[in-house]
Amino acid sequence: MNPSPRQPGVAFLHAPGPTRLPPSVAQALGTQPMELGDPALDGLIANCEQGLARLFGAGPGTELFLYAANGHGAWEAAITNLVAPGQCVLVAGSGPFAEAWAVHAEGLGVQVQRTPWPEGHAADAGAVEELLRADRAQAVLAVFVVHTDTGSGVTNDIAAFRAAIDAAGHPALLVVDVVASLAATPFDMGALGVDVAIGAAQKALMVPPGLSFVAAGARALQVAERNPAPRFYWDWQRRRSPLNYRKFCGTAPQNLLMGLHAALALVEAEGLPNVFARHRLLAQAVQAAVAGWAEGGALDFFVRDAAVRSVSVTTIAVPRGIDPEALRRLARERFQIGLAGGLGALAGRIFRIGHLGDLNAPMVLGCLAGVEAALQASGIAHGPGVARAVQLLGAPQ
Amino acid sequence: MNPSPRQPGVAFLHAPGPTRLPPSVAQALGTQPMELGDPALDGLIANCEQGLARLFGAGPGTELFLYAANGHGAWEAAITNLVAPGQCVLVAGSGPFAEAWAVHAEGLGVQVQRTPWPEGHAADAGAVEELLRADRAQAVLAVFVVHTDTGSGVTNDIAAFRAAIDAAGHPALLVVDVVASLAATPFDMGALGVDVAIGAAQKALMVPPGLSFVAAGARALQVAERNPAPRFYWDWQRRRSPLNYRKFCGTAPQNLLMGLHAALALVEAEGLPNVFARHRLLAQAVQAAVAGWAEGGALDFFVRDAAVRSVSVTTIAVPRGIDPEALRRLARERFQIGLAGGLGALAGRIFRIGHLGDLNAPMVLGCLAGVEAALQASGIAHGPGVARAVQLLGAPQ
Amino acid sequence: MNPSPRQPGVAFLHAPGPTRLPPSVAQALGTQPMELGDPALDGLIANCEQGLARLFGAGPGTELFLYAANGHGAWEAAITNLVAPGQCVLVAGSGPFAEAWAVHAEGLGVQVQRTPWPEGHAADAGAVEELLRADRAQAVLAVFVVHTDTGSGVTNDIAAFRAAIDAAGHPALLVVDVVASLAATPFDMGALGVDVAIGAAQKALMVPPGLSFVAAGARALQVAERNPAPRFYWDWQRRRSPLNYRKFCGTAPQNLLMGLHAALALVEAEGLPNVFARHRLLAQAVQAAVAGWAEGGALDFFVRDAAVRSVSVTTIAVPRGIDPEALRRLARERFQIGLAGGLGALAGRIFRIGHLGDLNAPMVLGCLAGVEAALQASGIAHGPGVARAVQLLGAPQ
Amino acid sequence: MNPSPRQPGVAFLHAPGPTRLPPSVAQALGTQPMELGDPALDGLIANCEQGLARLFGAGPGTELFLYAANGHGAWEAAITNLVAPGQCVLVAGSGPFAEAWAVHAEGLGVQVQRTPWPEGHAADAGAVEELLRADRAQAVLAVFVVHTDTGSGVTNDIAAFRAAIDAAGHPALLVVDVVASLAATPFDMGALGVDVAIGAAQKALMVPPGLSFVAAGARALQVAERNPAPRFYWDWQRRRSPLNYRKFCGTAPQNLLMGLHAALALVEAEGLPNVFARHRLLAQAVQAAVAGWAEGGALDFFVRDAAVRSVSVTTIAVPRGIDPEALRRLARERFQIGLAGGLGALAGRIFRIGHLGDLNAPMVLGCLAGVEAALQASGIAHGPGVARAVQLLGAPQ
Repeated sequence: MNPSPRQPGVAFLHAPGPTRLPPSVAQALGTQPMELGDPALDGLIANCEQGLARLFGAGPGTELFLYAANGHGAWEAAITNLVAPGQCVLVAGSGPFAEAWAVHAEGLGVQVQRTPWPEGHAADAGAVEELLRADRAQAVLAVFVVHTDTGSGVTNDIAAFRAAIDAAGHPALLVVDVVASLAATPFDMGALGVDVAIGAAQKALMVPPGLSFVAAGARALQVAERNPAPRFYWDWQRRRSPLNYRKFCGTAPQNLLMGLHAALALVEAEGLPNVFARHRLLAQAVQAAVAGWAEGGALDFFVRDAAVRSVSVTTIAVPRGIDPEALRRLARERFQIGLAGGLGALAGRIFRIGHLGDLNAPMVLGCLAGVEAALQASGIAHGPGVARAVQLLGAPQ
Repeated sequence: MNPSPRQPGVAFLHAPGPTRLPPSVAQALGTQPMELGDPALDGLIANCEQGLARLFGAGPGTELFLYAANGHGAWEAAITNLVAPGQCVLVAGSGPFAEAWAVHAEGLGVQVQRTPWPEGHAADAGAVEELLRADRAQAVLAVFVVHTDTGSGVTNDIAAFRAAIDAAGHPALLVVDVVASLAATPFDMGALGVDVAIGAAQKALMVPPGLSFVAAGARALQVAERNPAPRFYWDWQRRRSPLNYRKFCGTAPQNLLMGLHAALALVEAEGLPNVFARHRLLAQAVQAAVAGWAEGGALDFFVRDAAVRSVSVTTIAVPRGIDPEALRRLARERFQIGLAGGLGALAGRIFRIGHLGDLNAPMVLGCLAGVEAALQASGIAHGPGVARAVQLLGAPQ
Repeated sequence: MNPSPRQPGVAFLHAPGPTRLPPSVAQALGTQPMELGDPALDGLIANCEQGLARLFGAGPGTELFLYAANGHGAWEAAITNLVAPGQCVLVAGSGPFAEAWAVHAEGLGVQVQRTPWPEGHAADAGAVEELLRADRAQAVLAVFVVHTDTGSGVTNDIAAFRAAIDAAGHPALLVVDVVASLAATPFDMGALGVDVAIGAAQKALMVPPGLSFVAAGARALQVAERNPAPRFYWDWQRRRSPLNYRKFCGTAPQNLLMGLHAALALVEAEGLPNVFARHRLLAQAVQAAVAGWAEGGALDFFVRDAAVRSVSVTTIAVPRGIDPEALRRLARERFQIGLAGGLGALAGRIFRIGHLGDLNAPMVLGCLAGVEAALQASGIAHGPGVARAVQLLGAPQ
Repeated sequence: MNPSPRQPGVAFLHAPGPTRLPPSVAQALGTQPMELGDPALDGLIANCEQGLARLFGAGPGTELFLYAANGHGAWEAAITNLVAPGQCVLVAGSGPFAEAWAVHAEGLGVQVQRTPWPEGHAADAGAVEELLRADRAQAVLAVFVVHTDTGSGVTNDIAAFRAAIDAAGHPALLVVDVVASLAATPFDMGALGVDVAIGAAQKALMVPPGLSFVAAGARALQVAERNPAPRFYWDWQRRRSPLNYRKFCGTAPQNLLMGLHAALALVEAEGLPNVFARHRLLAQAVQAAVAGWAEGGALDFFVRDAAVRSVSVTTIAVPRGIDPEALRRLARERFQIGLAGGLGALAGRIFRIGHLGDLNAPMVLGCLAGVEAALQASGIAHGPGVARAVQLLGAPQ
């Protein structure tokens, strides 16, 4: 896009999304489109639906809806199908993404209750239980939980939220955003008792942004059927059709689907357990480096409890006086490393290293070594980081 | 997608969208994504906005909104920003797409008035004027007109609708769908007095589906600001931001934008007047062939008036007893030519040849010759068609 | 390459080589290279060797040598391994390519006998037999025959040459150039008693130029071993190695091999008999059109005997006063169709339509209709051509 | 190629060639070929010739010959054009590649004198001078020097060899192989008085293997004209033609040329001095790491004199008892890093890290960190390496 100064080599993309496109995905995106009546298009869609259903752990009765939209579009799909303006949902606070979802629902006229979020910690299932117990009128139609809050770097314990709803004896649906965790860390909506799961293509699924999906279980579908609020593009009922033109409320985003098809084949070829293990190992390497940096200096983990740190993204807190945006700029311009910054209330207080998708050990090591060089070039005190990651990854197997 | 029987050679895609991807667009789609804070991403978006503004003929005060969504998403954006549930719009009938737009608005709770559509003819500006004159209460907030109704193959005269509204002295906005005409036939929203224009990427813009755009003029923006209905993903107000994350209500569909960037560069390199002239010439070639087929047989133009036949798509009526779906299947399977069928009320009565986007003379000739072979193989009587197209295209310059 | 005026759409490439790259081949070419010690590189090479061996019909004892070189390089490989300067070969005249091969051998110091070529006819096996009978000293080490002479458009009957050598009771090797026929028309070196076969990637194999191959049978290998002339790059003996670095006398042309690997997979997916049948059918369509053009005008087949017309390329003779180069220029510039001209003695007297590789019916029809338009635009008298091809291809199956 | 276990992420290619393809080169390779008579093909070739002439520092009277062949083919081109069998050349020993070149010349029947190579040192210009002084009969037609001997990792001082020839008052041509140094470190054949320079595409030029080039100055062209030995594919005289079909002795390797065209554009966009500076900096980073490893353990630089270490490849000596092949295997399989081994006499005694072409800091850091992890996993004692490289690259600018 920038025609002027050539940047040699691979750009290291370490945002928590979008992520690097594997070659087969990149090539699939450029495949010539098909006419909408071509049976091969229906085959492509069916293949994507089946692959996603496996990833979500979608049981019988669960239906999948794919959208030509980004992840916020899928949020809107869940909100508009389940809740009419004036009705109520509960959002479990876990960082900027949970908060953004709450704001989205409010923007659509929905009443939102929030549980408080103690910065740097996971969402509080106990607080959810308490609020539901207090909701005698059962006004709360759904509890919204972000599995991995990509803004804070915590991964919430979904089972605890299912248990909280059950303990409260409340009929609210459990609606989970797995955008940043799907295909990175285990998730099984059937086993976890999740009613609606929301995912997107541009994270661990390694597809460009513009494609998102909602899996809705039987109870959620019933709630949606009873929801009288007018809706069209997102509407599940209208999308229940064998015709691809209806399924997507218009033209299917074919090329993104071809990319998804290719990405699902990669996940299958590697094996989902191997995908998860790889994400865990690479996250450990990143976190070993961050621990090393923290020892000798001013940086620290933003997420205090190591057990709830995400395998997809690691959030690093910087003290006052250090500008994470200047560090990101230097990392990008001098070292071709794209890091993420802080969102919302966390802007200027953290930076984030994404480590999800099509990554391997030397890519993560190159990122960490490059960030360490950027810390040094910026005069930010730090202990030895990449050497720790080398040690961890070079351990005898 | 279909791993089994290899289909050699170029598949001839002659639907009216999606259309063939030029090589530079196909390659751009597979470019590695950027981190959202990368200034190059903002540069890409600005470039796309400027290019689209030129295509739309967007004057000062007009704002452009790009959506990660298909064309129906852009319809929903126009409807939800301009009209609250219970309010009223007028849709000018011109075929299946105008009707689908009306149904979409109704699905969102909007009251819809329709002008009748005499099959095979253009939309009736006089009928619009009449209804507006009758609307003493000025309940109609907007008149919706499809420029090229891709379902019927007519191109409506937008200036006539502007004149109709003006003649009625009615304040209704003029909202025009140029999805199937943008970058194929002249359009200039400023000169035509269009308040809102709606386009999509997958037609003459030669980009895969999943990206659509709305250009809204000053009056339309004011109407939207007064509209109290809750909305979020489509909301123009929230999208007015220098931050790409806000502009797209979440992650921008980067790779489709890279494709659009490449496509706009192709349009510019060819020159918009040349692009229009090419579409006109190729449409004449197709219509010469159809005229030839019609002479010797049962087929005929669906659009009676040659002057309102689209340069993007030609609709061919088949008599009872001939199944256009069987012809399409044979054309696809034996001749690798993808033709479109009839939508809605026209299903089973027509087939359509798309001729827009990245096409040239031998591609169109190959399509016409292949369709002629398919007619012959199907036993459908027809006069000589492709020879007429050859004659037209081989005329001395 | 030409940055200025954009040429929309598919360029119709109808030279007899190089030919269109199928998408999977085009993508394979851009795959990241491997380190030379990577076992996957050896796997790739072995796969290509096996696929080529099947195409050649190479029996046991036959060895395959792949060259980073074009087809003329493979000629040089055959010449330098089999014949020392001063020794003698016999070349069967069949057009410009046979003649060029003779000149090549002479340039390397080899004595060449030629059989005369009656223009527009196949090579004369009887003349070969006669010369061999007359060669009492058995000075002729090898008989060189071009299977399909891409310069004249004839396909020679290889069995007749085997029979001629046998009838003469002469020990000369039979060396056959199948560059323009391999994977287009049946060939089986084992069944035909061919000692050496020479192919290249850029014809019916649909890979870019720069890769060629020689299959040498046991007798040929013995002749080469006895040949004392110094040689290195082309040397079969040095290339007999499990090490890829030796097999290719240096770095293997990996990416062209990846392209070949992809192309062989396409051939296998389609099925070799289907590939042959497709070439035959499309050649019939081209020849039907040429027959139609010839009826009404000045053009004619260059190859008089329909039975020896190639399925890969059709040669059209133009009378004095018509400049085939002007026609080619017009076809290229106005109709995006690349036709071949006349080589050597045939320059200015013929033009050629290639119809091999990744082609299908509408592509060939588009080419023929475009050429017909170009004939018309050039004022060259002609009968109806493309209509004949349509008739042939649209015949009930 | 290996369909089974998916390898996620970027494979780190750290052989000294072939090297990583930049995206624009990878895409150019898959461009549809042109018909040989298309003027755009001649434009492409002219563009490549001009770009290479600039890279070589080719002055007036110098001619460029491009080959569809690998680098050994270009060696053969230089040998066969300049020297007839039985004539004599002098090869300056500098490692496995100089030796391989000598063997190649001998294989073609040429008499070869060699200067001795003290392992780990540069070639000895003094020894060349001495041999030339002793050559009273002026039998030596040419002195062959490898600029960067990719097998040993030394870069020879070309000016010293020009001076040696001049000091000896000998008419021998100076023929230099810049395959591994062109576009990585400064070279200017005009300024250096080099008569023939030999390059290839797959090293710092970032194009796949299969394309090589020879630049021959006026004196060399005269020597070639006087050379009576028969030759054809490599022959300079026959290739002096405006016809692309003659220039390449047959079909030009179009797609590799398209890749070269794209690569030359990248070099120009970055600026040659910047390209050189980048190679120097990244080489320093690698060598800082090797120095660090060496301090704490058994590894060491193979090239003793730091001043003659190549910027393209670093050679690391391993002591007896350590198998570099096992290390390479582990690096490849567990860490996706492709390292090169020892060639010829150096097999089993060294491994090599390539650092040329489309590389940047985090890629090199990732490689070094990955190699360090592999050393650890292999139980090979070593000091801290990557931390040194981080320190060097993170120095304030």
